Amino acid sequence: MPSYKVIYFDFTGRAEPIRWLFSYGNIPFTDQRVSREEWVKLKPTTPFGQLPVLEIDGEPAAQSNALCRYVANLVGLDGKDAKENLAINQIVDAAEDLQKGVIEMFFCKDEDKKKELKAKFVSSSEVLLKNFDDRAGKNGGYLALNRLTWADIIVVLNYESWVNSVDQDVFKPYPNLQKVKKNVLSQDGIRNWIKTRPENKMKPKYDIKQDL
Amino acid sequence: MPSYKVIYFDFTGRAEPIRWLFSYGNIPFTDQRVSREEWVKLKPTTPFGQLPVLEIDGEPAAQSNALCRYVANLVGLDGKDAKENLAINQIVDAAEDLQKGVIEMFFCKDEDKKKELKAKFVSSSEVLLKNFDDRAGKNGGYLALNRLTWADIIVVLNYESWVNSVDQDVFKPYPNLQKVKKNVLSQDGIRNWIKTRPENKMKPKYDIKQDL
Repeated sequence: MPSYKVIYFDFTGRAEPIRWLFSYGNIPFTDQRVSREEWVKLKPTTPFGQLPVLEIDGEPAAQSNALCRYVANLVGLDGKDAKENLAINQIVDAAEDLQKGVIEMFFCKDEDKKKELKAKFVSSSEVLLKNFDDRAGKNGGYLALNRLTWADIIVVLNYESWVNSVDQDVFKPYPNLQKVKKNVLSQDGIRNWIKTRPENKMKPKYDIKQDL
Repeated sequence: MPSYKVIYFDFTGRAEPIRWLFSYGNIPFTDQRVSREEWVKLKPTTPFGQLPVLEIDGEPAAQSNALCRYVANLVGLDGKDAKENLAINQIVDAAEDLQKGVIEMFFCKDEDKKKELKAKFVSSSEVLLKNFDDRAGKNGGYLALNRLTWADIIVVLNYESWVNSVDQDVFKPYPNLQKVKKNVLSQDGIRNWIKTRPENKMKPKYDIKQDL
């Protein structure tokens, strides 16, 4: 088996789905966490001047969704053909649209603008989560294909930051999304990762660990 | 062969890469363009309330990059395995990062903020295009894998909007990116599409047609 090293900062963020995917598949990986000082030196050596980076036998690759897609294939959580991947990728990209709003909110310094972004997030999330809930209802508690895929992992992982963004349980009105969450969190590899992962330095109010 | 219908507004935007990919593969598709009035009625029937939508034998799918990835597979411009797809997806996602800046600029109403976004785009584009140019230098005039992939198509297509955003030829300092552009625009299916496609209602200053 090749050696894998995930390089990122010392928090969950864009590396966490990659860590969950490796953990799901019980594939060993080095979880390298760099300080801001180390990052200054490392940056020029990375593929696009960004983290996360995944080193595969020492060869670096970047862009978090590209990396997730690669690891999802390794652990069998991608589609078996282009049509199945289309079903998965639609969910992943729609969730990413919502996640962008969270990231924008996080970096926003202006309090009025932040309120506006929050209101926009709430209204977009209501539409999208209703849509996801319908899909999960039709797919036996999974977002696509009647089975666990990396789309479920992405959405349940984003759920943690969505809850923290609006300070309420965003899956609460959606029984099928609650099943998706349960299905993801019942995977041994993922449970074990969450239980033993380094403490989240961001110290969010809600940490998914409390739902294990 | 299944029937394909691309549904979008009457301009290039997020549907154009899908149209280029079908055209490259000489796969017939219905190019349905809806007015704002039609869109109001259509919106609730689409997978995520967004366009473009691709109907495959009448079944709708959405999210432009997910659709591109699907059509790229149909026409053989994806990778042959997960590792090849990783090489392609990194480029696509990095180009998307830059493209987001263009979209933000396009929708920005505040002139001062717009200037700031433009300056940010110029500095990001210089770093990324230098990076892309190095890759193209190592890959025989292609961005990855020493052959044409859908990453080349995405980047050359975005080039049109990047040129229009800063009103200058952004590939000019980069000889290998000029080769990528030449390699994409020399594909018969793509040439033919650009020559015969409906007039761009956005009427950009620079239209890639003038470079054929």
